[in-house]
Amino acid sequence: MATVPLKDELDIVIPTIRNLDFLEMWRPFFEQYHLIIVQDGDPSKTIKVPDGFDYELYNRNDINKILGPRASCISFKDSACRCFGYMVSKKKYIYTIDDDCFVAKDPSGKDINALEQHIKNLLCPSTPYFFNTLYDPFRDGADFVRGYPFSLREGVSTAVSHGLWLNIPDYDAPTQLVKPLERNTRYVDTVLTIPKGTLFPMCGMNLAFDRDLIGPAMYFGLMGDGQPIGRYDDMWAGWCCKVICDHLGLGIKTGLPYIYHSKASNPFVNLKKEYNGIFWQEEIIPFFQQMNLSKESTTVQKCYVEMAKQVNEKLGKIDPYFVKLSDAMITWIEAWDELNPPAKDSAKATNAASK
Amino acid sequence: MATVPLKDELDIVIPTIRNLDFLEMWRPFFEQYHLIIVQDGDPSKTIKVPDGFDYELYNRNDINKILGPRASCISFKDSACRCFGYMVSKKKYIYTIDDDCFVAKDPSGKDINALEQHIKNLLCPSTPYFFNTLYDPFRDGADFVRGYPFSLREGVSTAVSHGLWLNIPDYDAPTQLVKPLERNTRYVDTVLTIPKGTLFPMCGMNLAFDRDLIGPAMYFGLMGDGQPIGRYDDMWAGWCCKVICDHLGLGIKTGLPYIYHSKASNPFVNLKKEYNGIFWQEEIIPFFQQMNLSKESTTVQKCYVEMAKQVNEKLGKIDPYFVKLSDAMITWIEAWDELNPPAKDSAKATNAASK
Repeated sequence: MATVPLKDELDIVIPTIRNLDFLEMWRPFFEQYHLIIVQDGDPSKTIKVPDGFDYELYNRNDINKILGPRASCISFKDSACRCFGYMVSKKKYIYTIDDDCFVAKDPSGKDINALEQHIKNLLCPSTPYFFNTLYDPFRDGADFVRGYPFSLREGVSTAVSHGLWLNIPDYDAPTQLVKPLERNTRYVDTVLTIPKGTLFPMCGMNLAFDRDLIGPAMYFGLMGDGQPIGRYDDMWAGWCCKVICDHLGLGIKTGLPYIYHSKASNPFVNLKKEYNGIFWQEEIIPFFQQMNLSKESTTVQKCYVEMAKQVNEKLGKIDPYFVKLSDAMITWIEAWDELNPPAKDSAKATNAASK
Repeated sequence: MATVPLKDELDIVIPTIRNLDFLEMWRPFFEQYHLIIVQDGDPSKTIKVPDGFDYELYNRNDINKILGPRASCISFKDSACRCFGYMVSKKKYIYTIDDDCFVAKDPSGKDINALEQHIKNLLCPSTPYFFNTLYDPFRDGADFVRGYPFSLREGVSTAVSHGLWLNIPDYDAPTQLVKPLERNTRYVDTVLTIPKGTLFPMCGMNLAFDRDLIGPAMYFGLMGDGQPIGRYDDMWAGWCCKVICDHLGLGIKTGLPYIYHSKASNPFVNLKKEYNGIFWQEEIIPFFQQMNLSKESTTVQKCYVEMAKQVNEKLGKIDPYFVKLSDAMITWIEAWDELNPPAKDSAKATNAASK
């Protein structure tokens, strides 16, 4: 497949609290794209962006100004704030990356253009209904193997491309504590569709998605400042997105591309943040595994609102936090729709946005 | 993990119609194991086996003698006959390989010991209930990633290890015709569990399994001589095994090891054999996807008999072939139990076998 740069159709979203020196290494791959920088923490601090990059930057004051009271749905002092960037983008595709992620090398020693691989992943179909043992059948040199039903070979649209990490693997705090020296050195040369009905731990470090297809479900939840949980922002988005993709007949791919993750975060700090998540996920995951969305939920927004109600009813019993999260999910959708009025019904939407 | 040779616990099953010269290349890896050779076609032909291998060989006359009228469940003039070897084995593990498969090389140029990798796969747990984005968490240098529920990290026993093929990929006849020159050159350095609820096309070319856990479901169906279908023997076994593994809480892994598949079979001949399979699988696969086995089916045999009844009832409508296949499935289980009397109830079983 030819490389499609999608220059005018993709934004790169970066949450940060520091100067973006890491962009220097990405210059050959990112410079042609527009960046949306979501500054976390103290808004009076100045974030330096290397010369030559085309960007817009939002700090907490900007978020409060743009969203008003609805800004409450955007986390503070947590990289979950990045989802504000998804909301203000006007592009079809989003790539989001952490500021401690660098360009990785493939086994031949060549720099990996992560964005190019994500675009390839998003532009070719997914195959969630049957497993192909030679992995992505749309890749050069591969195909559907014997026994793959012909009726399923068209595949479905790919909504999410989940990339991986060389060097520091994305481990939870207990695993970090137990294996402080483990590094991921294995380059697995594959991309595959996560089958329908199977949940996965989605990491926000190196992630691309189709905003038009799944954007409103890419909410990173309430984390960090004032919340009883952290480091579950991307997990939350991953569970919600996977259930909605399964319901709407969309695909999620994982595997290539790799980035080089430079530095492990502090496992002691992480343990404190993850503490509740580690407990709660034992109930949250079965909740999502068993979730049924109604036939009436035909759009991502409708699915997400239905999901928010179930979160309130069923997870609210675990902790009042989930009632608050459920409300925030609704607020997020309201804010999304305000900033992204549906094209088909633009008069009504503009009206709503001007309220 | 240390390499466990399992010398006394594994048989290698090879279906063939010719002299087994291909074993010369496998000598360093296979010589310590016992071979069960299932000779297909003309029983008067002599199959030469290279010196130094420890083997037993069964031709059609032997099969008829051992199984009597029940020999009808073993296919003739089709490599599906290999499953007779699974039945007569007394070992815990089976590795089966086609006689046109040679030793492949890993990217460093080293010969791949396929059997060693299969044993590793079978000896470490599977994780069918949640997807791990760094693939097999039990492999050296890997683990469960952040967000993987701790309650699921023990995994389940692995029943099947499905290996892959470099050079000639396992394509169906239409794909062979369209892409006659395609070769698989991509070495994907991974093993992964096929998630619960997801079916896959199981290829019998390079396959290992735990006979104690799943043996009675490894029936390769009625193919070849006198049957309206061929080249779906391993697919049939794969669908049945996957549904039963899901029901009983067992795992199936796919990926490493690779073998080198030397020669594509004739696509015109294959098209004739596959013709019905290509049509029928469009109904068979949804049938297996929707299959529910009852709580009473607590053993592989009970699952398989229940499945046979559903094949009769539901697939029998497609073609009378499935009624015949359903009967053969029952016959297979009867023959299996006769040759493999349950240890717990050996007196009764011995009695049945001596009838």
